[in-house]
Amino acid sequence: MAAPLHDDPTLALTIQLLKQASVTPDDADCQQIMARRLAALGFKIEPMRFGDVDNLWARRGTSGPVLMFAGHTDVVPTGPLDRWHSDPFEPDLRDGHLYGRGAADMKASLAAFITACEAFVAKHPNPKGSIAFLITSDEEGPAHDGTVKVIEALKARGEAIDYCIVGEPTSAEVFGDTIKNGRRGSLSGHLYVHGVQGHIAYPHLAKNPIHLLAPALTELAGTEWDKGNAYFPPTTWQVSNIHGGTGATNIIPGTVEVLFNFRFSTENTAATLKARVHAILDAHGLDYELNWSLSGEPFLTDEGELTHAIKAAVKDVTGDEPQLNTTGGTSDGRFIAKHCPQVVEFGPINKTIHKLNECVAVEDVPKLSQVYLGVLERLIA
Amino acid sequence: MAAPLHDDPTLALTIQLLKQASVTPDDADCQQIMARRLAALGFKIEPMRFGDVDNLWARRGTSGPVLMFAGHTDVVPTGPLDRWHSDPFEPDLRDGHLYGRGAADMKASLAAFITACEAFVAKHPNPKGSIAFLITSDEEGPAHDGTVKVIEALKARGEAIDYCIVGEPTSAEVFGDTIKNGRRGSLSGHLYVHGVQGHIAYPHLAKNPIHLLAPALTELAGTEWDKGNAYFPPTTWQVSNIHGGTGATNIIPGTVEVLFNFRFSTENTAATLKARVHAILDAHGLDYELNWSLSGEPFLTDEGELTHAIKAAVKDVTGDEPQLNTTGGTSDGRFIAKHCPQVVEFGPINKTIHKLNECVAVEDVPKLSQVYLGVLERLIA
Repeated sequence: MAAPLHDDPTLALTIQLLKQASVTPDDADCQQIMARRLAALGFKIEPMRFGDVDNLWARRGTSGPVLMFAGHTDVVPTGPLDRWHSDPFEPDLRDGHLYGRGAADMKASLAAFITACEAFVAKHPNPKGSIAFLITSDEEGPAHDGTVKVIEALKARGEAIDYCIVGEPTSAEVFGDTIKNGRRGSLSGHLYVHGVQGHIAYPHLAKNPIHLLAPALTELAGTEWDKGNAYFPPTTWQVSNIHGGTGATNIIPGTVEVLFNFRFSTENTAATLKARVHAILDAHGLDYELNWSLSGEPFLTDEGELTHAIKAAVKDVTGDEPQLNTTGGTSDGRFIAKHCPQVVEFGPINKTIHKLNECVAVEDVPKLSQVYLGVLERLIA
Repeated sequence: MAAPLHDDPTLALTIQLLKQASVTPDDADCQQIMARRLAALGFKIEPMRFGDVDNLWARRGTSGPVLMFAGHTDVVPTGPLDRWHSDPFEPDLRDGHLYGRGAADMKASLAAFITACEAFVAKHPNPKGSIAFLITSDEEGPAHDGTVKVIEALKARGEAIDYCIVGEPTSAEVFGDTIKNGRRGSLSGHLYVHGVQGHIAYPHLAKNPIHLLAPALTELAGTEWDKGNAYFPPTTWQVSNIHGGTGATNIIPGTVEVLFNFRFSTENTAATLKARVHAILDAHGLDYELNWSLSGEPFLTDEGELTHAIKAAVKDVTGDEPQLNTTGGTSDGRFIAKHCPQVVEFGPINKTIHKLNECVAVEDVPKLSQVYLGVLERLIA
């Protein structure tokens, strides 16, 4: 199987990118490889380095509409090398799969962006719209100096984007089964509930913060925050950590600490959720401190030109209707959605991402390029 | 004030014992000092060393009833020496108090036991009953090789005890205000509640043990275990420690750990409390492990010969009626109560015990001896 498919340009470029050990935030020249191919197509190349993060902005055309491909060259660490069946930075073709760190997340998508553009430009040297690339090397890390900074720069200079496809691996069971048309928000809280420390033999002289917290915790864990909507599952609230007590078994502790997180739908906002948590804690009469941190507002792209185009493009390639949903973690889509009205995410099967022996099915790699080409054809030809 | 009181034999012996740095389990020859005085009175001296713990058994007389004085020569550590206003093992008389580690807990009581016996034997060389001493050097420590072992030895050889006075410092505000006629039990539990670990973005694939625990914790914290009774406050349940989560804020933990403790009245037993906790955890459908540890069954001495004798003896000395109660921590009384039908605890004011600058009021020291003498007179003269 390997020999003929090796000739596929998307697979070949995927392999080339996989050889670059681009662990966050190191781009390891991936963006230069991409930029050379794009420059050859007539893209204007604009590196945007912020801090120690390489970002690539590239655009072909000056008119609208603008279709942007967004992605990241950085990959997560390999984990224990002796548990990989092949070197994670020496791509290996076996059993119909291409193995390597970043194969699914998301170097196959990056390669498919490029080859889709090459095929498109060959056929439509002067399309009506523009094509853009926003590539970062800081998606898997703190994400402070990557996509968010490029978007700020584009906003600052008034450069509009109409459509965006993020190359995140969204397929769940089979290639093309899932497109994400949004992502849930993520809101975290760091709660301290205070009581009065004392000896366990004299509880009337103490106030046990764990006991005081328990009914509020029960209520928070049992609250229906919303029912979700057509694209979002219901908002969830989960405690990740709870700690109270010094280890001494005869002391009622003075404080208990709780870390929790919301994954929330567009039926709530960070502000509504914060207000509801405070209301519950206040109703239980707790003496507490609560520090919030918002790691992403939710975003949603309603059914429209972009979702129609990508659904049709997928169906052309796979024969099956893909699903739209918004499950999973956060992605850079949340930053792009602040500047671009229509954002979707589409890519290969995500079962092996961030794991040992990450891989992508060889047969899915050219299909990915065809899907992206199908969107270009539909929106800016 | 110091000069004339220095002549008081109880104060002099207290000072002698305080100079011995007998930090648990080191007796530091205190028992030898006591044994010499008792031998001179005709006591039969029987050292009982178990492990690294010195215990003293001494008895004068062979007939019943047997009144036993019980106590400990060991003291808790001093804590930071620079925060003591005088050397904790160089007893210092100032401001009407005798300062030193163990002054209140319980070397003044030990000295008073001895001088009370000396006064009693001088007056009643051939009393109807016997006097016994059970002195350990392991009350403040693990308490494995101390009183509990001596009681086992007495049981094994069929040596009965009718009345016991433990010299614990029971006075709260003024000398003689409180006699303890029992102690609450102490039962601890180490609970693990199991869920299913998972990513916080996919809570439907996980089971959060903190959320599962919260309603059970609420119920446990809100349960009325009993109302107490004439001598016991209501049974209390308190969590001392709760820990769940690895620190990672995006992981639902697989397990949450809870340490809790009951202080319980004679309206419950360890068995009834265990059964009720298991019933609550089971009713909430929890998957859990629970390891119990019983550090003391409660004991209670009903009003009778011993309580009447000591109440009358205290009132003779102070002019006021003392209270009977059962508050506070555990003591060696719990072990003695398994072999002796009537056990009370009586001693000086306990405000400074286990603290820096522990002290006893100088004027209370001879009174303590008079109270113990009053009990000897009433029960075995």
